[in-house]
Amino acid sequence: MRQRNIKNKEEILNKSLSLLKNPKEYQGRWSKYFKNNHEIHLEIGSGKGNFIIQMAKQNPTINFIALEKQASILSVALKDLDKLDNLVFILEDANNVDEIFENEITMLYLNFSDPWPKKRHAKRRLTSLKFLDKYESIFKGQKQIKQKTDNRLLFESSVVNYNAKGYSFEEFSVDLHGSDVHNPVFTEYEEKFKSQTIYYIYVKK
Amino acid sequence: MRQRNIKNKEEILNKSLSLLKNPKEYQGRWSKYFKNNHEIHLEIGSGKGNFIIQMAKQNPTINFIALEKQASILSVALKDLDKLDNLVFILEDANNVDEIFENEITMLYLNFSDPWPKKRHAKRRLTSLKFLDKYESIFKGQKQIKQKTDNRLLFESSVVNYNAKGYSFEEFSVDLHGSDVHNPVFTEYEEKFKSQTIYYIYVKK
Repeated sequence: MRQRNIKNKEEILNKSLSLLKNPKEYQGRWSKYFKNNHEIHLEIGSGKGNFIIQMAKQNPTINFIALEKQASILSVALKDLDKLDNLVFILEDANNVDEIFENEITMLYLNFSDPWPKKRHAKRRLTSLKFLDKYESIFKGQKQIKQKTDNRLLFESSVVNYNAKGYSFEEFSVDLHGSDVHNPVFTEYEEKFKSQTIYYIYVKK
Repeated sequence: MRQRNIKNKEEILNKSLSLLKNPKEYQGRWSKYFKNNHEIHLEIGSGKGNFIIQMAKQNPTINFIALEKQASILSVALKDLDKLDNLVFILEDANNVDEIFENEITMLYLNFSDPWPKKRHAKRRLTSLKFLDKYESIFKGQKQIKQKTDNRLLFESSVVNYNAKGYSFEEFSVDLHGSDVHNPVFTEYEEKFKSQTIYYIYVKK
């Protein structure tokens, strides 16, 4: 998501109880952070947080971790957010995801990720073969990814890469809002652009 | 494609040199029919034949076989068609494809196949798991399928089934005409509805 200049972002980040400053310390033991053995779901690129906050409220027996690399946009998510026991935010780059988690995530959400449309930037897409390899070590048992995007090129390359990496396709729609796929929580993007075609895929392996 | 009542269809079919009446006799030895060892490409559901006729004209070193089950629509394709050495039509149901070919097809084209949108008819789709199993024995060496459709449900179920059957995705587009995928020959449907979103996938295994 495009960065906006939020004036008091440092202050918001510093005082937020929902932001964890030292996430790498919890690698391999996030269950201890949450003080329970519930499933842990991760969103990479959580933006203004609409999706993950609603998911956390609707699913109290699942723990949610939201990773966002842009301080400005993260401060929008954290402003006025009451601390939830099953949700924590991290200010980090997706490239470091395998230094923060190990054998503990059961679901990864990728919502409206940066499409990096130029071919020479394809490796930066969160569903590049490089990133799919990186995710291998963060998952516990069955690997699951749910992705939504309105970007055709990102969707097409993601589908090809999931197939190449041996994921099975559990749900697949080239028009999520026109389909009967269960889609309980909208992202802020979906709320704003309801008439836009949304592509969706849910993969497992 | 919807059937129209063509008055002299029997006459057209009977006198066409491009229609082969006894296709099952050539199972396993289509190369002998064509009198060469060129690759053999098959289209199931060839409709009015625009696609396969153009393909045959543009690719003289590939043999093409077009299978169509509706006599009326096939008669439209055959009317006024000059015999091409590398193209033959068959009036047959796709269900019999494994009785007509054996270990000799290198490419299968599925263009705008009947979507059979109702769930209870899903098995009839030409990319159902049942049909994908049926195709196994017709292919020689590497199995290749190229599919175009404007039907969302057919496309979604096809993609899921190709993935389930271990095909790799060579080309994949959720907007063929808006993409840079090579698409040299339009079907009659594409010619007529150029602004319609066309889904496309090319799979191999």
